[in-house]
Order: sequence, then structure tokens, then C-alpha cells
Amino acid sequence: MEIALDEARLAVGRGEVPVGAVIVDGSGAVVARAGNETRLRNDPTAHAEVLAIRQAAAALGAERLSGCDLYVTLEPCAMCAGAISFARLRRLYYGADDPKGGGVAHGGRFFAQPTCHHRPDVYAGIGEAAAAELLRGFFAAKR
Amino acid sequence: MEIALDEARLAVGRGEVPVGAVIVDGSGAVVARAGNETRLRNDPTAHAEVLAIRQAAAALGAERLSGCDLYVTLEPCAMCAGAISFARLRRLYYGADDPKGGGVAHGGRFFAQPTCHHRPDVYAGIGEAAAAELLRGFFAAKR
Repeated sequence: MEIALDEARLAVGRGEVPVGAVIVDGSGAVVARAGNETRLRNDPTAHAEVLAIRQAAAALGAERLSGCDLYVTLEPCAMCAGAISFARLRRLYYGADDPKGGGVAHGGRFFAQPTCHHRPDVYAGIGEAAAAELLRGFFAAKR
Repeated sequence: MEIALDEARLAVGRGEVPVGAVIVDGSGAVVARAGNETRLRNDPTAHAEVLAIRQAAAALGAERLSGCDLYVTLEPCAMCAGAISFARLRRLYYGADDPKGGGVAHGGRFFAQPTCHHRPDVYAGIGEAAAAELLRGFFAAKR
């Protein structure tokens, strides 16, 4: 999660919402790391999780990341929850809750739906304080 | 929708689930068209809708596709519904319903959630018969 927080800090420097994500394989080796790049790339799908999943799938030459785990500083949205499920990620560790935009513990709670065909094990609140503080600082500076 | 169906037919030829998508701007000009490429790209996020949104955003040099409309042959999943919302697409026209994996009229119904901050106008059942027939043929051939 420290690496994910570093990616979130790098995102701030690019004027992006500070969210970072890391994917590790079964041995704990980092296979992908990314921060939000929606502005930099002019791509509304370029959330940290989606970028990390695309990066890991490309690195491993596989559409499915079975046995890999994702660490992300913020509760994934509906889009990212869908991507996590399709990627067959084994475990999801996330930091801050996102009552306004989250799709795991809030909103459509994708993993709890019968339309979700792979559910990772979910661990919430990992590194929550640091992740939430980064987001608070970012949005306070925007006001 | 005819172009989206053509993209779905091209996807079959690549061994992909036959779903196609098109984005048109306010004048009706096609700005992006894509079919599923999850296998070809080894990318679990490469659904037709996500590829079309990324293509359109790149073409228009903007993160938001306000004023543009999306045509897709199948009800979007949770991931694609999220992407459609983030892209600020104006209207969504889709073909076949997807009770097993849909995220618009099924599952978490993302656009109906308080965590969804932009809802397109949604028109279902457009070109439904042709879209459903393509999917039925594809899955029948896989058995």
C-alpha cells in the first residue's frame, strides 16, 4: 500500500485526483503500478485501477490476473469494480471509503450482485488515514 | 446501430464475444467505433464501449464527450456504465438486454445509484433482434 500511496502522491503533482494502485503477483512481486491519469491522457477510463490492470495484463500476456492482488488507496468505483472482477484478481485491498462514488461498499455494490461472476476477497481500510488525508488536501486546495 | 452491429460481426471473426459500439457527435458524425478486443489485446477492460470511449476522447482531445451519443449492441456492464457516466455521454442506445451481466437494467443499475453523477438518456432494445441473434450464434458455436 506504500507504493500505491506514492502513486497517489505523484498523481497530485499532475493535477489528478490522488488515487494510486499496485498489483502484486502471488510471490508479492510488483507487476504494475499506476496513479490516476484521466486528465493527462484525456481518457475518462484512466483510473489508477484500470491502468494497473491493463499494465499487469500486458506484462503477464494474459487477460486474467488470477492469483494477483490489487492495492488501491480509495474504494473502487463501479467501473473499476467491474474491471477487477473481469481481471479475476484474487484480493482487493483498499484504503479510504468513498461514499460519494464507491462501487464496492456503496452504490451498486457490484461484487454483491448476481451479475458479478468473480468476487475478490475484499479488505477495506488498509492505509486509510494517509489515503484520506491526501484526498482531503487535494480537494481543499481546489476550493 | 448498423455500424455497431458491423463491429460486433468483426469481433466474432476475432473469436471475441460479439459486441460492437459506435460514438457519434452532436451532428451525427461517427467519432469512434470498436468491437470487443479483450482477447486480442490481453486486456480485460477492452470492452467495445470502453475502447470507443477512449478512441473518441483521444480524437476529440477531451476527457468528456458531452453532446456525443453511444450506440452499443448489448446492455453495458457495470464497468462500461461507469465509463459512460464519466465520459458524460448524452444518450445511450443499446440493443439486447443482458440479464446475466448487464449493469444498466440489471445488477447494480449504476445510473440509478446516488453514486452516479451523470446519467445519459437511455434507449433500450434498438436493433435488439440482430444483436441477440449474433450473441446466440456465438455462444451456440462455443458449446
